[in-house]
Amino acid sequence: MQITAKPIHRTAFFLSDRTGITVEMLGHSLLSQFENIPLDEITLPYIDSRAKATSVVRTINEQCIGDGARPLVFSTLVNPEIRLIINSADALHLDCFSIFIAPLEAELGVRSSENTGRSHRVSDPAGYRKRIDAINYALKHDDGISQKDWNRADVTLVGVSRTGKTPTCLYLALQYGIYAANYPLIPEDFQHAELPAQIRNVRSKLFGFTIQPGRLHEIRSERKPDSVYASLGNCEYEVQNAEKLMRRAGIPYLDATSKSIEELATAVLHEAKLERKIY
Amino acid sequence: MQITAKPIHRTAFFLSDRTGITVEMLGHSLLSQFENIPLDEITLPYIDSRAKATSVVRTINEQCIGDGARPLVFSTLVNPEIRLIINSADALHLDCFSIFIAPLEAELGVRSSENTGRSHRVSDPAGYRKRIDAINYALKHDDGISQKDWNRADVTLVGVSRTGKTPTCLYLALQYGIYAANYPLIPEDFQHAELPAQIRNVRSKLFGFTIQPGRLHEIRSERKPDSVYASLGNCEYEVQNAEKLMRRAGIPYLDATSKSIEELATAVLHEAKLERKIY
Repeated sequence: MQITAKPIHRTAFFLSDRTGITVEMLGHSLLSQFENIPLDEITLPYIDSRAKATSVVRTINEQCIGDGARPLVFSTLVNPEIRLIINSADALHLDCFSIFIAPLEAELGVRSSENTGRSHRVSDPAGYRKRIDAINYALKHDDGISQKDWNRADVTLVGVSRTGKTPTCLYLALQYGIYAANYPLIPEDFQHAELPAQIRNVRSKLFGFTIQPGRLHEIRSERKPDSVYASLGNCEYEVQNAEKLMRRAGIPYLDATSKSIEELATAVLHEAKLERKIY
Repeated sequence: MQITAKPIHRTAFFLSDRTGITVEMLGHSLLSQFENIPLDEITLPYIDSRAKATSVVRTINEQCIGDGARPLVFSTLVNPEIRLIINSADALHLDCFSIFIAPLEAELGVRSSENTGRSHRVSDPAGYRKRIDAINYALKHDDGISQKDWNRADVTLVGVSRTGKTPTCLYLALQYGIYAANYPLIPEDFQHAELPAQIRNVRSKLFGFTIQPGRLHEIRSERKPDSVYASLGNCEYEVQNAEKLMRRAGIPYLDATSKSIEELATAVLHEAKLERKIY
């Protein structure tokens, strides 16, 4: 029998001079490679002054004493003075800017501008408007509710209810500025040879989601337990017929079972060859 | 007079074995520090086999010849074999995994698991459910439309129309699993001494957005040009009275002018001290 020491609890800090969204995604993704280490993750955004940096160092050092182990600090801090202050903390500091900016400067033969806040399309009113317009479009064309502007959609997702169409449309709008509508396939639609009237004229823009019936049964049961709607038999019937309808109509589709919203959105983006409107 | 050579056009590639969202955010944020370099950005997700990696190397090399300059390649590729293949491309390869995993392994005293796909809460059905529930909540409680469950909101955003409440609620739901409702303040609300009935009982959960009247006028004019609603005079009146109402009711608020959706959401998260439900 092998005896393994229980791993020490660690704290990870994600520091940024802006929102911290980028550094927390990167750090979280790296740390997910160390699944056996018990970890707390703390995001500290808007560290944009020496005073705030000094206070963060204090927080990190206290955590170090509390944990009995050095915290892991990931940072995207543009200002070199602030980075230096964070370096003084008793931690493993993985400083994304220092690590990447030097090789980029060498390759490009220019100095970096050391400006904060350029990453989230902040100062780009056109990009902001595109996102907002795309979100409003998704809201108005969710669940087949609007008859208007249906052909303005860059893509229309189809599939039985609860396959993830709505959150995927919203994510496509938020992240890529894409106009995404969605139309739920219901048992009534299976009885006709033709596609439902609302989506017949946008056939080339249709993209389907399917799902394993067992998983659909679980998801629907959370909302409407013991209903016909959620029953395994009905889920099997709906999925089978929706797939048949999509195949007959030549609609490409993917299996949404156990895919995250991000994965669904990027899969649609690439498989339907959509062009993103914002970066 | 100083003559400066026109900088060479460059291409940046963001490679990932999954969606590529993390690496493209990081790369985009780093490259925004080199604003004078004309750049194209190309995301290539799901590079999860040697064959795909080999084909990507070909694409990068062709781009190198076309541009007359080495592409910049950012990657988050867990599999070391695939990373090695990408290394052979004629490019500056900034390999996020190699750069970060080695110091993390040294610090934590364990090997990384080299598993792909752990970053986007994929295999966590509870997290998926929380996000979906939060999104559905935001959709049902957008623009003050539902009378039900109003007190289940973690936060309710208030402000005049077109200050960014809806996209912020959706982002809070998607990114953090937070139940966010929103309630638009309309001129009618300014005439009463009390808060509107619908939000009176959730006073401690209210958070306000305000905006510069000139910017509001611009935004509204895009939707309804030459309307009273969009006129500068009306925008000034609404903003002034909304701020007065929020101050009187003790509702904390922030200026949403020229803030991105990400910035608004993280500001609400931190200033209203909300607890995120998902990571």
